[in-house]
Amino acid sequence: MKLNKDLREMKKLFPKIIEYQKLADKNGINDIFQDNGGKLLQVLLITRLKVIPGREGNDAKDKKGNEYELKSANINLTRSFSTHHHMNPTIIKKYRKVDWIFAVYEGIRLKKIYKLSPMKLKPYYDKWETKWKTDGKKDINNPKIPLKFVEKNGTLIYDYDKDPLF
Amino acid sequence: MKLNKDLREMKKLFPKIIEYQKLADKNGINDIFQDNGGKLLQVLLITRLKVIPGREGNDAKDKKGNEYELKSANINLTRSFSTHHHMNPTIIKKYRKVDWIFAVYEGIRLKKIYKLSPMKLKPYYDKWETKWKTDGKKDINNPKIPLKFVEKNGTLIYDYDKDPLF
Repeated sequence: MKLNKDLREMKKLFPKIIEYQKLADKNGINDIFQDNGGKLLQVLLITRLKVIPGREGNDAKDKKGNEYELKSANINLTRSFSTHHHMNPTIIKKYRKVDWIFAVYEGIRLKKIYKLSPMKLKPYYDKWETKWKTDGKKDINNPKIPLKFVEKNGTLIYDYDKDPLF
Repeated sequence: MKLNKDLREMKKLFPKIIEYQKLADKNGINDIFQDNGGKLLQVLLITRLKVIPGREGNDAKDKKGNEYELKSANINLTRSFSTHHHMNPTIIKKYRKVDWIFAVYEGIRLKKIYKLSPMKLKPYYDKWETKWKTDGKKDINNPKIPLKFVEKNGTLIYDYDKDPLF
């Protein structure tokens, strides 16, 4: 097969992709090319969190066993974070127990990581619970948390613009 | 921030990931880390097909404007190809007009690409239409095409084991 420019470039780069996947494997991510696997990997390495295999709900834990909910958003596409497609009091009860980690991307570039405590997120939990009751106990489809709220209320734990790691 | 081994490895590899994304951008793939973007890229380069932006149904086209349906499966996880979550006569009618490209992966490693003509896939189309009618015109949720069928009836257009490109 005659290789054009793009195929030659692919041939050059793919060994590095294999290495990236090996680093991902080591950190519990089976496929970098699905479900933002290759992005999540960076967040795990920076926060030193570990993925919780095969779990729904909270996504990662630290050395002490504290669990965290991980969310990400690509600011090229959206200005808010998705939450859960069937938000209800059971989910909210779990959320109230853990810190959330919000990762902000520009395309595939990790720009910021914020941490928010349950107390900071309480206004959303209260609002969603009220809405759920008012709507006749109907699950809420993916209520959003605006980036602005996260920027204002979160603790910035990584900032590409100030101290880029990669 | 003190860098551990994994972070140093990430620092080393990520510039290559950025280059890989640039190659993807050039070929119409906005995010390698979602929906198998980084895998699809290889299939596009080898087959010289172009993605059809923002389209449902058939996924790519060649220089002459012929459309193709692209499917992939990771043989570490499954022995069959997913098709469509709401299979019905309208979808099947579209499928009957195009060749299908089946890409077989082992993890993130592209192993084989097969092409199947509408004639080869006819038994499935007929079977699904019959089932749809028999079931009271109910859409079929993602009927599978076995890898064995694809291996037996497809034209092998890429084979990593015989002539690895990457």
